[in-house]
Amino acid sequence: MKALRFEGDKLCLAEVPIPRREGEALVRMAVAGICATDIEIARGYAGFRGTLGHEFVGVVEESPDKSQTGRRVVGEINVGCGRCDLCRGNDPRHCPDRTAIGIRGRDGAFAEYLSLPPRNLLIVPDGVSDRQAVFTEPLAAALAILEQVEINSSHRVAVIGDGKLGQLISRAIARTGCDLTLIGKHDDKLELAARAGVKTVKLDAAGIDPATRFDFAVEASGSAGGLGLALDVIRPRGTIILKSTFRGEIGLDTSKIVVNEIGVIGSRCGRFETALRLLESGEVDVEPLIASEYELARGVEAMAEARGSLKVLLTN
Amino acid sequence: MKALRFEGDKLCLAEVPIPRREGEALVRMAVAGICATDIEIARGYAGFRGTLGHEFVGVVEESPDKSQTGRRVVGEINVGCGRCDLCRGNDPRHCPDRTAIGIRGRDGAFAEYLSLPPRNLLIVPDGVSDRQAVFTEPLAAALAILEQVEINSSHRVAVIGDGKLGQLISRAIARTGCDLTLIGKHDDKLELAARAGVKTVKLDAAGIDPATRFDFAVEASGSAGGLGLALDVIRPRGTIILKSTFRGEIGLDTSKIVVNEIGVIGSRCGRFETALRLLESGEVDVEPLIASEYELARGVEAMAEARGSLKVLLTN
Repeated sequence: MKALRFEGDKLCLAEVPIPRREGEALVRMAVAGICATDIEIARGYAGFRGTLGHEFVGVVEESPDKSQTGRRVVGEINVGCGRCDLCRGNDPRHCPDRTAIGIRGRDGAFAEYLSLPPRNLLIVPDGVSDRQAVFTEPLAAALAILEQVEINSSHRVAVIGDGKLGQLISRAIARTGCDLTLIGKHDDKLELAARAGVKTVKLDAAGIDPATRFDFAVEASGSAGGLGLALDVIRPRGTIILKSTFRGEIGLDTSKIVVNEIGVIGSRCGRFETALRLLESGEVDVEPLIASEYELARGVEAMAEARGSLKVLLTN
Repeated sequence: MKALRFEGDKLCLAEVPIPRREGEALVRMAVAGICATDIEIARGYAGFRGTLGHEFVGVVEESPDKSQTGRRVVGEINVGCGRCDLCRGNDPRHCPDRTAIGIRGRDGAFAEYLSLPPRNLLIVPDGVSDRQAVFTEPLAAALAILEQVEINSSHRVAVIGDGKLGQLISRAIARTGCDLTLIGKHDDKLELAARAGVKTVKLDAAGIDPATRFDFAVEASGSAGGLGLALDVIRPRGTIILKSTFRGEIGLDTSKIVVNEIGVIGSRCGRFETALRLLESGEVDVEPLIASEYELARGVEAMAEARGSLKVLLTN
């Protein structure tokens, strides 16, 4: 089968065997989404080698759980050991021995087929299209923020970064009724958010009014400068949520964190159930976030296109 | 009067007028303590110009509050505007218009006299000696951690840095009954902590066992490498408390914070009442942390001595 792989030095479309793992389901990919993390992995982030991709919707070809066969599914990306306390508590997201599709020790979804344990798969409701369902993983990641901090209508919240992740986070967080501002650099992307009812601020040479101070700031810019900007706009004792992962180090004046007693929280994967419910209800409209679609065979080209753009999809 | 001042290019002992501020008390300094922050300020941290010093015990010469005259006092270092919501809630620590003795817009305690509003002063109980009372400010800063996070006997806690602040923090936190480890580089300082009943680990080439994971890690090393080490020893979803302030930036791989969903909290000033109570009860024994005493006139020499040493005191 065809698979878009990163082999440590280059990204390439390769011909590989269909993955078959004992006790797991075989899923035929229908649509997959390219995430900024995929682009970072192809630059060396996380030291991953193998088939990329962790956002997908597909159809179960075979599964030890016969009720899944032929069903349309999305899949939680972390595969835990199944034995540790975390896994037994149904939360393998921090299992020390976990693999994660396309990120850590396990081939991903930018291929004709992928393999996942049956317990990782969730049936997609009929009312949710493939183009919506493929957003389940990043929307769940956006919603993870609300598992970690309590945001309500009394809070002023900034989302930094108008890219695909910042757009999804804005839409997910706006539902709390908070006073939300998306801070970005791109007129077209800010306009897209504004059309979804999100207040926006263009980050230009003038920067953000220093008198503006937020209770929460979500760093989703995917760039080294995002945390510094978050530290400039957060109020004393406010909380910054870090969502971006990228390769390399940033320069940070930690004394700002100490003097203003800022909290900084890293935030990664969320729960798929909530995300699927929001997609089904239509409360979060994701289709305007799609920039383009490519056939899997044109995956290398799609990855180049995806840098700095809204969601680029791969189809099978 | 004599005052130890930093004028932007050099540290010097200067002759300056006795400070008299409308509505404030005049305190004759008895003993003052040199903090790592003072050393950083003398290297340019915080952009401060003026008389250094924020740890002191002294005697009130004059005060609008007559009941304070002649009494031995310590003083909260932050002076708020008195009008904002924070100040009216009796917490000027984050008042945006605050000054802070020896750190921000207000002369400090390394002088024969200093000026503070009466509301900043706390009477020192008779049972607490000057050499103990001078630790009120740094002990309060150590205790601030317990205002911010709940640490109890079920938690594994690492304190990183065996210097004066790490030593105080270890003693303050050990009272929670947690499983505490002080991580440091200096045999003599680790031995001092061990004599106070604190478990210690020497940080050498072998480093910390990667299987060791802490629920909380307090970064008090005052060095650029401290946060990186904290990220290496913290468990997923654990919390790092940052106490060190120093000049300049550190290099940080923020993806570790994101992937492991670590919380990082800055921590600065604490409440003096609790610290004074602990000193009075003898629960925290601070005198073993005194390295040496210098007369104020030898302040420049004392500052040189204080770098990398335990607590150096100035006397008047």
